Amino acid sequence: MSALIEPRTLKGFRDYPPSLMIPRERLLETARRVYRSFGFAPIDTPALEYAEILLGKGGDESDRLIYRFKDHGDRDVALRFDLTVPFARFAAQNIGKLGTPFKRYAMGPVWRGENAARGRFREFWQCDFDTIGTTSNASDAETAVVICELMRALGFERFEVRVNNRLLLNGLLEQLGVADKAVPVLRALDKLLKVGRDKVAAEMVEAGGIAPAQAESVLDLAALTGSSDEMIDRLRRDFSANARAADGVARLAQLLEVAKAAGVPEANLRLDLSIARGLDYYTGTIYETFLLDKPDIGSVCSGGRYDNLAGLYTKQALPGVGASLGVDRLLAAMEEMGLIEGVSTPAPVLLVQFAEEHLPGYARVAQLLRRAGINTEVYPEAKKMGAQLKYAESRGVKVALIAGPDEFAQGVWKVKDLAQRQETTVAEAAVVEAVRAVLR
Amino acid sequence: MSALIEPRTLKGFRDYPPSLMIPRERLLETARRVYRSFGFAPIDTPALEYAEILLGKGGDESDRLIYRFKDHGDRDVALRFDLTVPFARFAAQNIGKLGTPFKRYAMGPVWRGENAARGRFREFWQCDFDTIGTTSNASDAETAVVICELMRALGFERFEVRVNNRLLLNGLLEQLGVADKAVPVLRALDKLLKVGRDKVAAEMVEAGGIAPAQAESVLDLAALTGSSDEMIDRLRRDFSANARAADGVARLAQLLEVAKAAGVPEANLRLDLSIARGLDYYTGTIYETFLLDKPDIGSVCSGGRYDNLAGLYTKQALPGVGASLGVDRLLAAMEEMGLIEGVSTPAPVLLVQFAEEHLPGYARVAQLLRRAGINTEVYPEAKKMGAQLKYAESRGVKVALIAGPDEFAQGVWKVKDLAQRQETTVAEAAVVEAVRAVLR
Repeated sequence: MSALIEPRTLKGFRDYPPSLMIPRERLLETARRVYRSFGFAPIDTPALEYAEILLGKGGDESDRLIYRFKDHGDRDVALRFDLTVPFARFAAQNIGKLGTPFKRYAMGPVWRGENAARGRFREFWQCDFDTIGTTSNASDAETAVVICELMRALGFERFEVRVNNRLLLNGLLEQLGVADKAVPVLRALDKLLKVGRDKVAAEMVEAGGIAPAQAESVLDLAALTGSSDEMIDRLRRDFSANARAADGVARLAQLLEVAKAAGVPEANLRLDLSIARGLDYYTGTIYETFLLDKPDIGSVCSGGRYDNLAGLYTKQALPGVGASLGVDRLLAAMEEMGLIEGVSTPAPVLLVQFAEEHLPGYARVAQLLRRAGINTEVYPEAKKMGAQLKYAESRGVKVALIAGPDEFAQGVWKVKDLAQRQETTVAEAAVVEAVRAVLR
Repeated sequence: MSALIEPRTLKGFRDYPPSLMIPRERLLETARRVYRSFGFAPIDTPALEYAEILLGKGGDESDRLIYRFKDHGDRDVALRFDLTVPFARFAAQNIGKLGTPFKRYAMGPVWRGENAARGRFREFWQCDFDTIGTTSNASDAETAVVICELMRALGFERFEVRVNNRLLLNGLLEQLGVADKAVPVLRALDKLLKVGRDKVAAEMVEAGGIAPAQAESVLDLAALTGSSDEMIDRLRRDFSANARAADGVARLAQLLEVAKAAGVPEANLRLDLSIARGLDYYTGTIYETFLLDKPDIGSVCSGGRYDNLAGLYTKQALPGVGASLGVDRLLAAMEEMGLIEGVSTPAPVLLVQFAEEHLPGYARVAQLLRRAGINTEVYPEAKKMGAQLKYAESRGVKVALIAGPDEFAQGVWKVKDLAQRQETTVAEAAVVEAVRAVLR
């Protein structure tokens, strides 16, 4: 026999055992359900693309991280590093057939050869939704509503979706006569939470090349607080003479109004003129989402409006708006917050196997439960009862069903509540109801 | 502006637009639901593995097809070509913590640099389930039940799961004194459907090195027909003196008995002693699944029992049994059979936008429908009604909801059945019920 090969995963990669995978599936299913409820349709694109499609889209840093190689046909290929660039390629290629507006979601793994620092994986999941082919603010408002619905559907109540609109800041910079400095100024502003006002002001002056007083104006705008109504009133007054910024204010005001009509609680959506997002890409509304009990993990769902998705591949302008759910970041937060049950089986019921001869009886009763929507596992071997119950408990099973020769003779089952360590005996016809009672 | 990059996918790869992706998601969700109902738990492994983990597992042919390259750290890495080899590596690495029996399912893309012949893609999905760490026939029986439940849940009634057990054939070969010829004889037998009895007999003699009369004995066994009960009776008699084959017969008899108790219709599960599966890997029960209306596409769900999953990575013997759903093959069949609706949106309802000022009203009513479980899209622009209805119809939307100033003044909505081209007007409070009536 040849020597064993050491079973191991690559550095920066990991397996998902059931205890991690069950929450991930639940999260993705919830996202799928919410996205669909708004009419977003699923698409998928290949993991591998021509390298030229992917390169140069996220800057030099991204290019360095791309998994790139020659395939069997000596093609220069690469693994996708996000879902946005493949979507842009997809849109350029297919939008003629699909028509606009086009609303899609996509979820899947992406690959980046990151330094495997704490929590950074080289394979991780993204989960995006976008509306393209329209500049309508209805889609910006809907994006905010989708994020709020998604967070609530995931079980969060204490969260804040923070919105801003780059038109405001761009309008202000225009007013100040430094519209051409928008990129470095926004990049500096994006660091506000991390490094504080003084350092951001300094960077705006040094890297951005604007005057200290101009930097203060920008930072004053970013620091504006109050209720949404107060802030909108104030912004309307301040920017009445600036068409660009006034448009931004009007769009934010309408977004808030539509979200309110859709039932979004005020506490879950607020204006925050300090959020900028690092990406140059965004041109209008900006979204970030914070868990109030875990602000340190950063935004768990971010996005914004952009002018043109696929300009590198097509002359057709495809404006759009969308956001991306940080799947792994959110799972890590949910785990830390105790929102993830320590369960490694999807079946809350285990049917204990007493003797092989009863397998047909076990199969019959297990199907009764499954048809009633209760996932049920039959233990495959007639091991000692203690071993079977230990197996059940270690996996997070809630109910054990037990029947040996006596029970089969009488047509009854023992229903054992594993948490309460209580046992009742019921007729076969009453098993489903008895199990339901324990699970409730 | 620089030249455009041509938007294209790699040869052998494809995008999934919504019309393909909606059925794929439905299929995978159904599989997930059925697998879970039996207590199979999800796992996931990385797309990339150390090349040494993947190489040499599927023979030279597989190795040639593997996408293999050097990563950033100059590691020899490769993309998985199936879900079984990574599962074997996962099991060897984690089974100590997870314990046995271990029931898992996994679904995801795999990559093979195939010649892109008709219908062969270089990226395709697999969807497997396995029970490892037990030799119990309860798991073999359950595997058959799972396949039947899965096929029914997918909407099929006219299908046949065909089961066999290699112990029978191995027992027969033992009886004939040519047990050492099992591998080439099985390989020849696997071609029976494709090339016919004569050519298989010839191959058994030439490549297998057995006598013509011995080949006839094997082919007589494979040709056995009759009801399951008749066949089992006959096999019990024929193999009473052969311990190995008798064990195979007993396991098949018990499998059929358990499946019957689980409610599997006789028409959906039958003995077929001619199925062999090409893989040397299998040692016991064998499963193949045929659509009676599409026999030509081959088996859509196949699997079997094996003695040792992870012998290359660990000394711990991990016997198991499982099967794999042919996702893309089944989708292609469903498409040809007209089982896939021509729908490219998950929302059966479109709210037509009459004027932007009503966006809050649209948002409110759309949420009413969503909370009632009805996926609803709001058209993002106040385009002409005809354009919006055309958009809806081209995507397969069933109901349009329309309200302009008059309707808002009266608090009513027009509910338009797009298939019947009928329209009713109802109060806002009655919209959900009216939509439900059309969708029923």
